[in-house]
Amino acid sequence: MTTTTFPYQQLFAFAESVFRAIGCPEEDATLATETLLSADLRGVDSHGVARLIGYVRLWEAGRINATPRVGVTYETPSTAVVDGDGGLGLVVGPRAMRVAMEKARQVGTGWVSVKNSNHFGIAGYHAMLPLAHDMIGVAMTNASPLVAPTHSLERLLGTNPIAVAVPADQQPDFVLDMATTTAANGKLEIAQRKQQPIPEGWAQDAAGAGSTDPNAVKNGGALLPLGGATGSHKGYGLGAVVDIFSAVLSGANYGPWVPPFVAFLQPAANPVGQGLGHFFGAMRVDAFRPAAEFKADMDNWITTFRAARATPGQRVLIPGDPERETAAIRLLDGIPLLDPVLRDLESLGQKFGVRL
Amino acid sequence: MTTTTFPYQQLFAFAESVFRAIGCPEEDATLATETLLSADLRGVDSHGVARLIGYVRLWEAGRINATPRVGVTYETPSTAVVDGDGGLGLVVGPRAMRVAMEKARQVGTGWVSVKNSNHFGIAGYHAMLPLAHDMIGVAMTNASPLVAPTHSLERLLGTNPIAVAVPADQQPDFVLDMATTTAANGKLEIAQRKQQPIPEGWAQDAAGAGSTDPNAVKNGGALLPLGGATGSHKGYGLGAVVDIFSAVLSGANYGPWVPPFVAFLQPAANPVGQGLGHFFGAMRVDAFRPAAEFKADMDNWITTFRAARATPGQRVLIPGDPERETAAIRLLDGIPLLDPVLRDLESLGQKFGVRL
Repeated sequence: MTTTTFPYQQLFAFAESVFRAIGCPEEDATLATETLLSADLRGVDSHGVARLIGYVRLWEAGRINATPRVGVTYETPSTAVVDGDGGLGLVVGPRAMRVAMEKARQVGTGWVSVKNSNHFGIAGYHAMLPLAHDMIGVAMTNASPLVAPTHSLERLLGTNPIAVAVPADQQPDFVLDMATTTAANGKLEIAQRKQQPIPEGWAQDAAGAGSTDPNAVKNGGALLPLGGATGSHKGYGLGAVVDIFSAVLSGANYGPWVPPFVAFLQPAANPVGQGLGHFFGAMRVDAFRPAAEFKADMDNWITTFRAARATPGQRVLIPGDPERETAAIRLLDGIPLLDPVLRDLESLGQKFGVRL
Repeated sequence: MTTTTFPYQQLFAFAESVFRAIGCPEEDATLATETLLSADLRGVDSHGVARLIGYVRLWEAGRINATPRVGVTYETPSTAVVDGDGGLGLVVGPRAMRVAMEKARQVGTGWVSVKNSNHFGIAGYHAMLPLAHDMIGVAMTNASPLVAPTHSLERLLGTNPIAVAVPADQQPDFVLDMATTTAANGKLEIAQRKQQPIPEGWAQDAAGAGSTDPNAVKNGGALLPLGGATGSHKGYGLGAVVDIFSAVLSGANYGPWVPPFVAFLQPAANPVGQGLGHFFGAMRVDAFRPAAEFKADMDNWITTFRAARATPGQRVLIPGDPERETAAIRLLDGIPLLDPVLRDLESLGQKFGVRL
């Protein structure tokens, strides 16, 4: 499939204009764009500007509030629940993380569970926000139900990612950002477009049997939790923890009630909470040890792992290495967009009178 | 292999006497026994009384302090570092979790990183301590390096478990307790005793190739991170987070420097920290929502998942179901011990003049 490459700044200006066109205040449009495009920069193409049209369709369906009043509804010195007021997760997320960071400043750590939000882009972006303040960041979100727990024929969980970012000193930061499934849904979508079989362990069919059909999930099957044939109860358990921290702690929808991202599917008629849920944490490293000592040990941790002997032709990576390397390249060389994504953006441009 | 079954109380009295015999104060001996035997009750036979002789050997080697002064060395309102003073992780762990819970009482959550400790039994036991106080419990620990990160030929991580326990109302609690590897080392030990091949995805050989040889790890290979052929970078990332939270935050040994559990292997000559590390968290659920609301939603979460349609002959379990069911049976019917374990206990009995 052919691609066209655009400078980051050009895509940024375009997406920002689209968010302005649906009524986002200027500050929110900028913030939403930064959050969204962090995915394109870091090579997570499924979660970036390719989804802009999806957010617009949700807004058109009345399911996104472009002018949310995001606020704390419940709190203690180290915790809060934030109500996203139906806003874009792309702006609710960073605001909620700001609350967590302020609490960490005051009492060492801050933990914020969010309700009444929408999809927030990549978890890694949010987890990285505390890094500049010598804090560890944690970010999770629940998501539309596409995943079958171990032995289940029903889809009850989303790909429910976990991200953890840890500051180092001279070394680049440690940034883990992972779906709790074997493969993210974006990888399945790519296989569908190419009509290629998917590896075993990614999905099951409607009868619960393992499947290599890229359309298995579409046709009543489900994504499988991380862990494969002998360990999927672990991925299921992790996805469940993400769901509970994000939604049962906050009062958002959980499990099969999480509203779908695609506007053509209706949310559940009997919601158990408000919107979709996230969970954010910030921990000051100097709430445990002097920051300089901690970061020196992180440098040693990172260099030790990176220097490990590897299988021929391979190297041991630190979580975050591939995404950081991609971001450095794409900031210089631009971001490649697949033709279908480009056509979606052009249709948005026409709709809102914005030039790409 | 034949087994002999003992009542829980009988094994408890025996193990407690052995801990007394190596010099543990009465309170510590009782606590260590409760922590250790929680593994036998819950069916995690590899981590229970079968390891009693291992702890004794570490004490004989001068690597366990039977009379530790466990104390907080650094703190903020929501965090602390606890120095285990070289004590049994079985007693250091619960004391550190008590610190986390007290902080949660004060400011909503408490987070404690521990250095200078030893192996602490099963993570699930520690994570469950806050449940009775309507708190969510989190427990992690690093462990002797047996696991190769993705592409590595070297063992740099332990099986580094994560446990999360969440209180419900009428339903039994949610208790996830999982190694961040495909299989715990205990399962490999069982396959070694039976000389049976292990499933693919559990281990690699010394050249980094996947292996079904139960002795692969012993012969220079390594355990594999959770995730299998296409996802082991996720298990590696999770194991790394456990290592960082447990040891880089506290100042314990991390990665390849974690001291081995077996006394016949020497600790690294150039330690980067003190002992082995743990990480504990306690979150009051009413730091987010009224506890009754939270627990009602947890009941709904649990009953929804448990009622899901399943593949023929199977059911969808809630994390903690199998362990709780085993504990109920073993409290009534007793705990079966394999012959080699029984012989180890008998030799301990002779050494210390204690009757099993």
